Amino acid sequence: MSGMTSLGLIEYFSPADRKIADWFILTMTTGFPWGSGVDSRLQITDTKLRDVRVKIYQPANSLGKKKRPVLVYFHGGGWSLLSADCYDPIMRKISRESDVVVISVDYRLSPQHPFPVPLNDCFDVVEYVLDNSDTLGVDSSRVAIGGDSAGGNMAAAISLRHQKRIALQLVLVPVLQIINWQTTGYMENVLYLNKSINSPNSLVFLTNYLNLSPAYAHQFLINNHTSPEFKKSKYFDSVDQKKWMPKKYVRTKDLWENIEYKKDFGNQELFKKVEGYLKEPLISPLIADDETLSGLPFTYIMTCGYDFIRDDGIMFHEKLKYLNVKTELAHYPEGFHNALMFPHGPLKMDIGVKIIADIVRILKNKL
Amino acid sequence: MSGMTSLGLIEYFSPADRKIADWFILTMTTGFPWGSGVDSRLQITDTKLRDVRVKIYQPANSLGKKKRPVLVYFHGGGWSLLSADCYDPIMRKISRESDVVVISVDYRLSPQHPFPVPLNDCFDVVEYVLDNSDTLGVDSSRVAIGGDSAGGNMAAAISLRHQKRIALQLVLVPVLQIINWQTTGYMENVLYLNKSINSPNSLVFLTNYLNLSPAYAHQFLINNHTSPEFKKSKYFDSVDQKKWMPKKYVRTKDLWENIEYKKDFGNQELFKKVEGYLKEPLISPLIADDETLSGLPFTYIMTCGYDFIRDDGIMFHEKLKYLNVKTELAHYPEGFHNALMFPHGPLKMDIGVKIIADIVRILKNKL
Amino acid sequence: MSGMTSLGLIEYFSPADRKIADWFILTMTTGFPWGSGVDSRLQITDTKLRDVRVKIYQPANSLGKKKRPVLVYFHGGGWSLLSADCYDPIMRKISRESDVVVISVDYRLSPQHPFPVPLNDCFDVVEYVLDNSDTLGVDSSRVAIGGDSAGGNMAAAISLRHQKRIALQLVLVPVLQIINWQTTGYMENVLYLNKSINSPNSLVFLTNYLNLSPAYAHQFLINNHTSPEFKKSKYFDSVDQKKWMPKKYVRTKDLWENIEYKKDFGNQELFKKVEGYLKEPLISPLIADDETLSGLPFTYIMTCGYDFIRDDGIMFHEKLKYLNVKTELAHYPEGFHNALMFPHGPLKMDIGVKIIADIVRILKNKL
Amino acid sequence: MSGMTSLGLIEYFSPADRKIADWFILTMTTGFPWGSGVDSRLQITDTKLRDVRVKIYQPANSLGKKKRPVLVYFHGGGWSLLSADCYDPIMRKISRESDVVVISVDYRLSPQHPFPVPLNDCFDVVEYVLDNSDTLGVDSSRVAIGGDSAGGNMAAAISLRHQKRIALQLVLVPVLQIINWQTTGYMENVLYLNKSINSPNSLVFLTNYLNLSPAYAHQFLINNHTSPEFKKSKYFDSVDQKKWMPKKYVRTKDLWENIEYKKDFGNQELFKKVEGYLKEPLISPLIADDETLSGLPFTYIMTCGYDFIRDDGIMFHEKLKYLNVKTELAHYPEGFHNALMFPHGPLKMDIGVKIIADIVRILKNKL
Repeated sequence: MSGMTSLGLIEYFSPADRKIADWFILTMTTGFPWGSGVDSRLQITDTKLRDVRVKIYQPANSLGKKKRPVLVYFHGGGWSLLSADCYDPIMRKISRESDVVVISVDYRLSPQHPFPVPLNDCFDVVEYVLDNSDTLGVDSSRVAIGGDSAGGNMAAAISLRHQKRIALQLVLVPVLQIINWQTTGYMENVLYLNKSINSPNSLVFLTNYLNLSPAYAHQFLINNHTSPEFKKSKYFDSVDQKKWMPKKYVRTKDLWENIEYKKDFGNQELFKKVEGYLKEPLISPLIADDETLSGLPFTYIMTCGYDFIRDDGIMFHEKLKYLNVKTELAHYPEGFHNALMFPHGPLKMDIGVKIIADIVRILKNKL
Repeated sequence: MSGMTSLGLIEYFSPADRKIADWFILTMTTGFPWGSGVDSRLQITDTKLRDVRVKIYQPANSLGKKKRPVLVYFHGGGWSLLSADCYDPIMRKISRESDVVVISVDYRLSPQHPFPVPLNDCFDVVEYVLDNSDTLGVDSSRVAIGGDSAGGNMAAAISLRHQKRIALQLVLVPVLQIINWQTTGYMENVLYLNKSINSPNSLVFLTNYLNLSPAYAHQFLINNHTSPEFKKSKYFDSVDQKKWMPKKYVRTKDLWENIEYKKDFGNQELFKKVEGYLKEPLISPLIADDETLSGLPFTYIMTCGYDFIRDDGIMFHEKLKYLNVKTELAHYPEGFHNALMFPHGPLKMDIGVKIIADIVRILKNKL
Repeated sequence: MSGMTSLGLIEYFSPADRKIADWFILTMTTGFPWGSGVDSRLQITDTKLRDVRVKIYQPANSLGKKKRPVLVYFHGGGWSLLSADCYDPIMRKISRESDVVVISVDYRLSPQHPFPVPLNDCFDVVEYVLDNSDTLGVDSSRVAIGGDSAGGNMAAAISLRHQKRIALQLVLVPVLQIINWQTTGYMENVLYLNKSINSPNSLVFLTNYLNLSPAYAHQFLINNHTSPEFKKSKYFDSVDQKKWMPKKYVRTKDLWENIEYKKDFGNQELFKKVEGYLKEPLISPLIADDETLSGLPFTYIMTCGYDFIRDDGIMFHEKLKYLNVKTELAHYPEGFHNALMFPHGPLKMDIGVKIIADIVRILKNKL
Repeated sequence: MSGMTSLGLIEYFSPADRKIADWFILTMTTGFPWGSGVDSRLQITDTKLRDVRVKIYQPANSLGKKKRPVLVYFHGGGWSLLSADCYDPIMRKISRESDVVVISVDYRLSPQHPFPVPLNDCFDVVEYVLDNSDTLGVDSSRVAIGGDSAGGNMAAAISLRHQKRIALQLVLVPVLQIINWQTTGYMENVLYLNKSINSPNSLVFLTNYLNLSPAYAHQFLINNHTSPEFKKSKYFDSVDQKKWMPKKYVRTKDLWENIEYKKDFGNQELFKKVEGYLKEPLISPLIADDETLSGLPFTYIMTCGYDFIRDDGIMFHEKLKYLNVKTELAHYPEGFHNALMFPHGPLKMDIGVKIIADIVRILKNKL
């Protein structure tokens, strides 16, 4: 999810609103609303794969080669904002430095296109790449997928289904469940950067994705969207912080020790509306059954301390470890939700440099 | 109404959409999205009068003087788009060249603020100016009001109420009635520039103003919004083209001769919704009663040949003449709806130069 | 050359100035500073060929095919402004409608990169395409080149050298000589649109290209840059309007009849500086020797009546006809220099539609 | 001085370059390139005072009142960039929260307008305000002046001349001397943020102001612009860090203890060119004579730890204290050069909030 909420852009989600959000990101990350100029080390193609818009980044020195490694990437922005265009600087950097072909998916956005449209767009591109590796000059046994925030959510969902054909997944500052919002991550961080990154308004992105009125956003935040029965079900168990959230990642020790969930409340009417979504592993990969999760490929998870969805990635890592899936957790205690956008540009930060360098290293070593 | 419809901005009317529309107008009229720079011949003030945002233009050589003439202006844009900001270049030109203080009203916009909000904002500013002329350094007996398109509509509406206190009104390419859309002006021009100025989509601006779903726009176009009874009422008589539209302004002679209105149809349900609006002279000044119209101040009407609302202004002129109101019609057969925006800039046109020069002349002679 | 001169951008030619010029063109031609969105009928690639930036447009239905026809295009802008980015809408349209692969060359610009840099960049791309047709999936016997204004100048120059390998050239509203600026085209048109397209300031583009101070621009305009001797040489004969400019294209008959060139004047110092340039057929293709010109491929020339460089293209057509080269002249008496930019968008014009339709027809029939 | 150097805008300083820099600042400080919308608590006027462009901010509740306190402000940007337009959000905040009329001066910029043009523009506005307080509705005994960076330099220079008529000066992160660039502030900070705020390229702003080629910038940095004799003169004494820079402000203790200036070198040719500037207190207020400095009004100095011109303000404070001038130093060890721009907006920072709150407090208490 994104800091765009501070810009008052969350009411309309019009094409112009989204362009303004893109310009904001490009200005912050390159200094100019038009972004980066040409880069002679890359060939960049705008096209459609199975009717989904993508930008393809090919390292210039790999042109004409076959069997190249490839990363299919899903940008962040709460399924509702941002684009392959404004992720251009970061995709360039990753492709250039890791020597991997990157396919950045410009999936359709909510609320105009709610679940499962954005996810299906991503699915379609992944399947196209797997099935047409020769045409694209890539190696079907070296296909990685990845994404951050809402994009990390969709990467994890796609791995559930395509686990055997994916070589590596990058799950970055992800949303991995929509059942429990009263996490230690939320509670510790809502007061930091609350005009931007950790704003409760970000829940509007979820109501967009679930095709609900934004008026319901607040009810999610206080866990009023689940019925008392659901709160006691196996679904909630899958996101039980006492079980899956190691103490060491929580800054406020008392908080972790005293966490306890009241379970005897819930808006039944809202629950009825969203029950199907709450039980859907393609929305909440954390609740997938053990057998499915056990089959996942190497999973690189990146989380940041000052991120209100910090805990999802950490709990996912714990669960995968428990199931003997190969997984690596890169947790940056000093990081914040969008830190990966700042390895360069006028707001270049050490934390951004580190995060991207680690992603590049993983791509080089594991793909 | 405006050519913005071609830009796909008519679905959302978000703040960002409107900014993009402003940038488009400023780029077309000045070459740059940021518009004109400083002009040492003017002092320009952004402020609020009675809580309505205005831009005040004072000729530098008039600063400190009392009893100056003043024009209160309402911009066009279908009550839904554009702003005092994007009319800045044209307001500067008029103030500078006519030596008149110009107060450009940035009224609130539809659909978020439907009738009567935009009109009341304009009313409030006019009343403030009339009641506080000393504070503003203007002469309460030399207050002109004016506007183009939707702004011309509101100028005419305000004159109905404040007729005795207004010295002059400029009613430029106005909408003056919403009862009959099957005018010769509409029929002759819908095929010209139909992707922009004369697009039937412009009717969305009217549904915005009337607080209706845009889905009704098409019904207005074919006069399905009025009941058979209403079509035979005095209201329809007021916009009867056979009575008020002189043949000479119609390019297609056959059209004028054969015009005949079928009256035995109409969507009763829609009519019920809009009946109040249809009978409201503050929306359709053409239907005001003769006594009210007779009291109007000097009225300068400007119309353009290639404008699908061409006929409203012409019929208004005919009616005022009939009622012995002092009126002048400046009809530019070669003109189009937005021609007044182009007396300068990269698209400078002779027609634009002429229109503005005539407005300046009227202000100098009649105010 | 371009109307940008009216925007005051001719002093600096900084990267930001050029971006603003691009935004202006994109806003005029698409309504938005960011231009057109994705087009599913095209695949668009940003890359470098022989170290020169290009945008490659491939019709979606031609992907994977071999031996496709290809057009290498050089944009206009006085060798000094504009870019492949702002020509994007027009390149898309041509590629889409003619089913030809288009390679739009983003050559380096003057004054930072004077002659022969921009031309060599264009040469390099053409040679790359001719020598690597298999890699690109195009047919080396169906390579067209083309350009407008300064781009038309470079297309004609490249054809001189590569005449046997080029199948078709499009020479649109071109500059084809820099020897005689007192043409009937200049004299008839300098008073039209003189704040934009036909501004004498446009000569700054030429001083940029020739690596001269802009202070010399005015001397070119009055033909003071050539010595008396040069004015009597074979070079001047090649641009003699009495010989090569048919009367019928000149609107002002007296002008054509009375045209006479005083030859006994000229700034010797300036002439010394520019003598080499003046004798260079790669700058003035009109002065190439008959043998070279005789070998040219099919040449499509487009000229516009209200263009101050109107006569160059017409004289080129006459000369090629005289030399039995296959040539077609499309002269649009009502056209203006940049009319080809407006076959769509908010300023869509019939003349723009016609010009592009004719280009598409030529590509379909002759390539 | 400014972080714009990272944007590659330091070569041209064209109007478009400067607009892009303004957009960058406005996007960073408000989220949008067009900046803040209307604020009903302020009336904002664009006008010229003595032919210098200014923006005047009047608290709405003070309109019509006489004898109001007023701050004349000079923006930063190395005398070369930025504008009253991009300082608009910060000027609004200061006016609104301190209830002071703010006059923000849009002085002409270098290199097109080198010293003394920008300074004289500022002088002219200050004199106009002092001499026309009644017209402006302000109190001539309550006139404050202020500025940051290059603007702080000009505020200090103007106070030297108008000391008796100024009630308060705000000298924020100022440049106060151009003699010694090998300060502890420079040496400690050049490695921090060196792609932006503390870039050595910032010296280009100084060569702009002094009407010198940017090629000399590097020589200033290593103090090669002063002759051996000058290095031993009273001028250098005035900026002697051993004398005027208290140890406690230097983070690197060894640095302070070992600082020692080699004095036997210097580019005589450059020194000849700049000697007049180096001896000019209107450029280096730190070298003004004691008598002049003793007459200064209450002086509020703000400095930041991570600023490569940190030491100028601190040394000024020490000197004024020594001369018994009323002075207050607000030193923010954690601050950086542009921190005062971020009391709000998407990059809102605690340090920005604190700096502005302290300025507001001073205006309320001391004016």
